[in-house]
Amino acid sequence: MAGWKDYIRRVEPYTPGEQPKQSNIIKLNTNENPYGPSPVVCQVRENMDDLRLYPDPSAGMLVESLARYHGVDADQVFVGVGSDDVLAMAFLTFFNSDKAVLFPDISYSFYPVWAELFRIPYEKQPLDASFRLVKEDYYKENGGVVFPNPNAPTGIYEPLDFIEDILQHNPDSVVIIDEAYIDFAGESALSLLADHDNLLVVRTFSKSRSMAGLRIGYAIGNPELILAMNDVKYSYNSYTMNRPSLILGTKVLEDEAYFQSVIRKIITTREWFGNRLKELGFTFPESGSNFIFATHKTVPARELFDAAKEHGIYIRYFDQPRIDNYLRITIGTDEEMQRLVDFFEEYLK
Amino acid sequence: MAGWKDYIRRVEPYTPGEQPKQSNIIKLNTNENPYGPSPVVCQVRENMDDLRLYPDPSAGMLVESLARYHGVDADQVFVGVGSDDVLAMAFLTFFNSDKAVLFPDISYSFYPVWAELFRIPYEKQPLDASFRLVKEDYYKENGGVVFPNPNAPTGIYEPLDFIEDILQHNPDSVVIIDEAYIDFAGESALSLLADHDNLLVVRTFSKSRSMAGLRIGYAIGNPELILAMNDVKYSYNSYTMNRPSLILGTKVLEDEAYFQSVIRKIITTREWFGNRLKELGFTFPESGSNFIFATHKTVPARELFDAAKEHGIYIRYFDQPRIDNYLRITIGTDEEMQRLVDFFEEYLK
Repeated sequence: MAGWKDYIRRVEPYTPGEQPKQSNIIKLNTNENPYGPSPVVCQVRENMDDLRLYPDPSAGMLVESLARYHGVDADQVFVGVGSDDVLAMAFLTFFNSDKAVLFPDISYSFYPVWAELFRIPYEKQPLDASFRLVKEDYYKENGGVVFPNPNAPTGIYEPLDFIEDILQHNPDSVVIIDEAYIDFAGESALSLLADHDNLLVVRTFSKSRSMAGLRIGYAIGNPELILAMNDVKYSYNSYTMNRPSLILGTKVLEDEAYFQSVIRKIITTREWFGNRLKELGFTFPESGSNFIFATHKTVPARELFDAAKEHGIYIRYFDQPRIDNYLRITIGTDEEMQRLVDFFEEYLK
Repeated sequence: MAGWKDYIRRVEPYTPGEQPKQSNIIKLNTNENPYGPSPVVCQVRENMDDLRLYPDPSAGMLVESLARYHGVDADQVFVGVGSDDVLAMAFLTFFNSDKAVLFPDISYSFYPVWAELFRIPYEKQPLDASFRLVKEDYYKENGGVVFPNPNAPTGIYEPLDFIEDILQHNPDSVVIIDEAYIDFAGESALSLLADHDNLLVVRTFSKSRSMAGLRIGYAIGNPELILAMNDVKYSYNSYTMNRPSLILGTKVLEDEAYFQSVIRKIITTREWFGNRLKELGFTFPESGSNFIFATHKTVPARELFDAAKEHGIYIRYFDQPRIDNYLRITIGTDEEMQRLVDFFEEYLK
């Protein structure tokens, strides 16, 4: 056997949600937004000739728009190719001690994968029996803290005083709050930035902003954190954000009314759909996201997952300890959720 | 001082070529193509509503188009966010031994940066006095070999038997040939793939394909290498290529005639511009790229660089040992090169 095979990095590859290629299915498995981005993006007429030029490596137009949008300075904003890129860069930049980085045992499945990839020691902290984070678990000595709020795939939102307690107990660690779903929940940890220079808040355009297809994520933190991330990013790939991402991502920030209306629609759908689920014998923690994480009182999740798929409805099932009887169901349009309700009704009869 | 500051990764950030924001300058500093991509890309009417959906994580349409274009199988093609992303993934995937990875002392400046970032041992091999690679330097035991062909920033192309000698002496290492500029040079190492399962050839859409603004790079190698890279990529960021990149990148491959005509135009311009440079007292190695790496017999490169910039013409200067009296001049349009010639003529009078 050729010697080079010994030195290939072996990883446990992450399995993304299925992206089925048929078009006649209902796709509620990857937390995409059922509504397109604001129609203002159709006003953009990109000059195709400009594609010959490198994009601005500092992503200036997008960084400045995000800074204005959130009322922070431009040197507090880092952008990347989806929040996965932003989070991976943050792991690489901040988690370099020999102490274990802490995150929940049930959480975004990429955290342990990045930790393995970058050889970062880590220790999972178990959620309690009702899938809540136990804040005291994050008070011990550590090399960093990261969790989503709302958490994934539970959808549970913890209020700001919970986050603040963790920040106060970790003055020597960078604490990353991954707010992929925050727009469907409550107050953002951004308001804690003024008092906590160890806080990094990560966001994405893929959920509430209806732009999963563009791959835009960002982080907001104190300028020292952002500078360090940019140094690492430039040393890895200087030109990560392509021209369409910069132009369309900037444009979509202009239409706040549309953005808010989409969020309201999804929350309204989530609430009635949740009530219907309860009537059908499901239970689930209160969702602060664009999905519901539900279990049925009698029928196994795996069975429901397979049956729904058979029926052309894709939802998400995780074959993992503690959550292997749960389904993560993305909130789609009213029509899509009605069809899923109809299917459950029929199947569970 | 807060403890988290101790654990920030400190890197020597890569300095990309200046991307000046004024529009009335002549930009010959980052090896962009002076001509836009094929007009066929203007036929693309993307459905903005689809931006709400994640792109295909396997980048299927682009991978299959590239496979057809190069006459290889789809499982031999890896795509990424520019060749920087592809190369960084290759470093991370293949360079995991304790032996030093070998690359030239004068070469693409990202190689040592990635090696430092991923803690990969490396050893630079000096080019000879005429800036040629010395193939015997790559026969010693190593943890991998990587160099551009044509080399950057010298522009020198080494013929295939040179590459083959290095491959034959390295059956136990992955050998990466970075062919960013190959379309302006000669035969590609792709023809060596059939006999060498340790060869990875890396390409980009940023130079000959006039699409630096989209960020598309790719690698071709044996399926085992490509699978390993994909495993690492999926464990890092599953959805790296956004929808515009997939759609426009695929479309541009359709127009071979335009692509070849652009390459011919640039080579024609390079040849007459080179002759004019010689008449002006410059010398340079024969270029197999879309730039010329030149030094003047009497006037220091730094001085010429500053004077040209003052005059609104951006070229590239590297303040580095051995090459600090050289200028890297991208081949632009005939008009742009004529204006640079006029400037040199006037300045050197």
